[in-house]
Amino acid sequence: MRAYTLSEEEVKSYGKDYNLYSWSVQGKVDPMVVSKAEGIYIYDAKGAKYYDMSSQLVNANIGHGNKKVIEAIKTQAERLAYIAPSYAIDVRSELARRVVEIAPDNMGSVFFTLGGTDANEGAIRIAKLYTKRSKIFSRYRSYHGSTFGSGNLTGEPRRYPSEPGIPGFIKFFDPYIYRAGIDFKSEEEASKYYVDKFREQVIYEGRESVAAVFLETVTGSNGIIIPPKGYLQGIRNVCDEFGILMVCDEVMAGFGRTGEYFACNNWNVKPDIITFAKGITCGYVPLGGILIDKKITAYFKDNVLNTGLTYSAHPISCAAGCATLDVYKEENLLENSKNMGKILGEILESLKDKHKSVGDVRYIGLFSAIELVKDKETREALVPYGMDPEKIMPRILGMLRQKGFLTYSHENMLIVAPPLIIKEDELRAAMKIMDEVLDEVDKMIE
Amino acid sequence: MRAYTLSEEEVKSYGKDYNLYSWSVQGKVDPMVVSKAEGIYIYDAKGAKYYDMSSQLVNANIGHGNKKVIEAIKTQAERLAYIAPSYAIDVRSELARRVVEIAPDNMGSVFFTLGGTDANEGAIRIAKLYTKRSKIFSRYRSYHGSTFGSGNLTGEPRRYPSEPGIPGFIKFFDPYIYRAGIDFKSEEEASKYYVDKFREQVIYEGRESVAAVFLETVTGSNGIIIPPKGYLQGIRNVCDEFGILMVCDEVMAGFGRTGEYFACNNWNVKPDIITFAKGITCGYVPLGGILIDKKITAYFKDNVLNTGLTYSAHPISCAAGCATLDVYKEENLLENSKNMGKILGEILESLKDKHKSVGDVRYIGLFSAIELVKDKETREALVPYGMDPEKIMPRILGMLRQKGFLTYSHENMLIVAPPLIIKEDELRAAMKIMDEVLDEVDKMIE
Ligand SMILES: Cc1ncc(COP(=O)(O)O)c(C=O)c1O
Ligand SMILES: Cc1ncc(COP(=O)(O)O)c(C=O)c1O
Repeated sequence: MRAYTLSEEEVKSYGKDYNLYSWSVQGKVDPMVVSKAEGIYIYDAKGAKYYDMSSQLVNANIGHGNKKVIEAIKTQAERLAYIAPSYAIDVRSELARRVVEIAPDNMGSVFFTLGGTDANEGAIRIAKLYTKRSKIFSRYRSYHGSTFGSGNLTGEPRRYPSEPGIPGFIKFFDPYIYRAGIDFKSEEEASKYYVDKFREQVIYEGRESVAAVFLETVTGSNGIIIPPKGYLQGIRNVCDEFGILMVCDEVMAGFGRTGEYFACNNWNVKPDIITFAKGITCGYVPLGGILIDKKITAYFKDNVLNTGLTYSAHPISCAAGCATLDVYKEENLLENSKNMGKILGEILESLKDKHKSVGDVRYIGLFSAIELVKDKETREALVPYGMDPEKIMPRILGMLRQKGFLTYSHENMLIVAPPLIIKEDELRAAMKIMDEVLDEVDKMIE
Repeated sequence: MRAYTLSEEEVKSYGKDYNLYSWSVQGKVDPMVVSKAEGIYIYDAKGAKYYDMSSQLVNANIGHGNKKVIEAIKTQAERLAYIAPSYAIDVRSELARRVVEIAPDNMGSVFFTLGGTDANEGAIRIAKLYTKRSKIFSRYRSYHGSTFGSGNLTGEPRRYPSEPGIPGFIKFFDPYIYRAGIDFKSEEEASKYYVDKFREQVIYEGRESVAAVFLETVTGSNGIIIPPKGYLQGIRNVCDEFGILMVCDEVMAGFGRTGEYFACNNWNVKPDIITFAKGITCGYVPLGGILIDKKITAYFKDNVLNTGLTYSAHPISCAAGCATLDVYKEENLLENSKNMGKILGEILESLKDKHKSVGDVRYIGLFSAIELVKDKETREALVPYGMDPEKIMPRILGMLRQKGFLTYSHENMLIVAPPLIIKEDELRAAMKIMDEVLDEVDKMIE
């Protein structure tokens, strides 16, 4: 096969000439050529080794090169690589059963998609079909996908290319306490404030016209914003009061990232719909999905589920999904996520104490962010919202990478979310690099 | 692995209980359990064998179980199953180069997605970013996908759940000559009429506000509507006149289906953007993409390409894509599509002559539809548009399936689009079944 014999230069030049890269000015892209990925490590073409401290796009939860999942892919490729979604096959039926089994007990059935973007799109359709209402709420500090519907759910700047927006998509504020502008006495007080404001906004928009509210259970790329105590239940109550569906986007937060299969389990809240992707196959093959609860399941027994994709519930993806669920269980990854998460939390707190550029750290399980500031007192962000003219964040990422630490940034935040298989010594060694680079960031703001 | 040992009953019952099926009333779904697929054949759990006469969803162009593609999947799963889209890897760079190579020569680069729906979504974003205009034209008899943007491009009823629609998405009429209501003297006359009407509508909508026109080069599911001579060039000319981007959706028509890699080659027309999916990997793993021409490629050298997906340019998908392109070439599938297409055309014409229920047949390469009517004179469709209360079309599909012929229908049309590897005797044997079933349909309208 021609492709396997390309030189590093060819990989780079064909890539730059012919392949388009996401969210980038193409002329400025200088992609690292990757030759291998194993466990928590990525290797470039020269053999240099890097910690994958964001699990790629927070999807490689079980790490790279897992033999069990690879074997499942190979076996299913031989058995039956593709069959249309309308047919029943073993791995498709089995994965559906198993995803419902590990989900909150009000869930009834699942529709499989290819990723998170189309899962959210499907959830919008389902919510509108079921409620016969049209307005959709979502939050500003959020990312839900890049197509028109999920792009309009998205609150951050990656939404703008989907505008002029779809009528009836309404934004509200996240419980982003660090930048609330209010000095809350407790988490509960903050929750009450944000839930009350949400309820007020629903009333202004028209109680009976709101189909659904979408929220990342724990906000991911936009800075690991963790719902304060009582917040999710408060939103749940408003939804119940007005007949609004609560949709938790667990694309990033799901599958062990926070220490539970679904992040909503951390607060014992039961959404009406859960969307997921990433961790269900950890990216080995594309897969996403929409879990719907029992009452919505019952509704579609008698009504058309009006959505579809050629590659919905793809056989190889379903086989990989079954194997990935085995891995979570057999390798105790939920437990490791919790245990390593505790250590990560301690390290992050010490970094915050030590570095004047660290304004805030937020973490749950192995899902965390470091928020960089120019000034701890004023909390002025290291880069202004939606812009970074001096390319400060890419420079910081470059310093990290230089030392073998790969991750990505969003606004003034660094994401730290390693594979759930990481061990304590690896975690400490990697975070030592972060510590060193934060020394440099401290100097930048002197 | 648990899933591999499920009984037929378990596959069926787990499927019905937990898995949601596309475009269906779930309580009425009775999915066939599939055990195997090989070449042009599908086998159910009892071992019964069926001709796959629609190549599943018109995606399995190379047929099922192709060893070369399976091997590529297995090899890449071992080498590197996943790496984020921002990195350069051999199969990603190589596939990009090769897709551009086989595309019309004005094409410059490619952005890989997961399927057709998100390819069209990306194309909408790209067209709006590049032109800085917001209106988008597409046609009524079309399917472009199920998410909000591609769902709003879609003209047929699968669009309705994406409504209230996105402002600025405008529909126009297809050159559907059989139901034009005008007695055109020639293809050229029809083309002139439809192009003039398109131009007039663009002017009414505002010459300078239209970003792009999307068209299926050959309309697929909505009835294999083949552009009359001069039509595509006419649309191209209007686009050039007003600075509108011409986007050809080749998700179904591309990759050999019409006898060419891209259907637009049949008329030597060069779109600004081509979207594709299906045939690039034939469904063995999900993959889609957006080809953009050289001027748009140049634009994004200096501007942000503001879109992305976690599984964009997935490594295993790219490896499968490279292998699939090898198969087209080595097995001469474009040629076979043309040759078998000629025979298919002759058979279809004879069916039209023979059966009073056959109002029209349309075909190009191995891409064809049989349009069923109640009356050849009045052309009244066998079932009214957008409804089929007596379930006539499912009954016809059931009769076909009973005799070993699998396909799908759309409105009053039966799709015939077998894998491009089909041989003459197989094609004749399968179409014999169609002939027999059409005898029954003739009786239904007596
Ligand atoms: C919370 C959330 N939702 C949805 C998505 C979109 O998922 P995908 O990129 O698989 O389409 C993402 C991707 O990062 C995400 O983090
Ligand atoms: C012409 C066309 N465009 C787009 C799509 C959507 O592709 P996908 O189902 O892979 O999202 C289809 C699917 O049938 C299609 O036929």
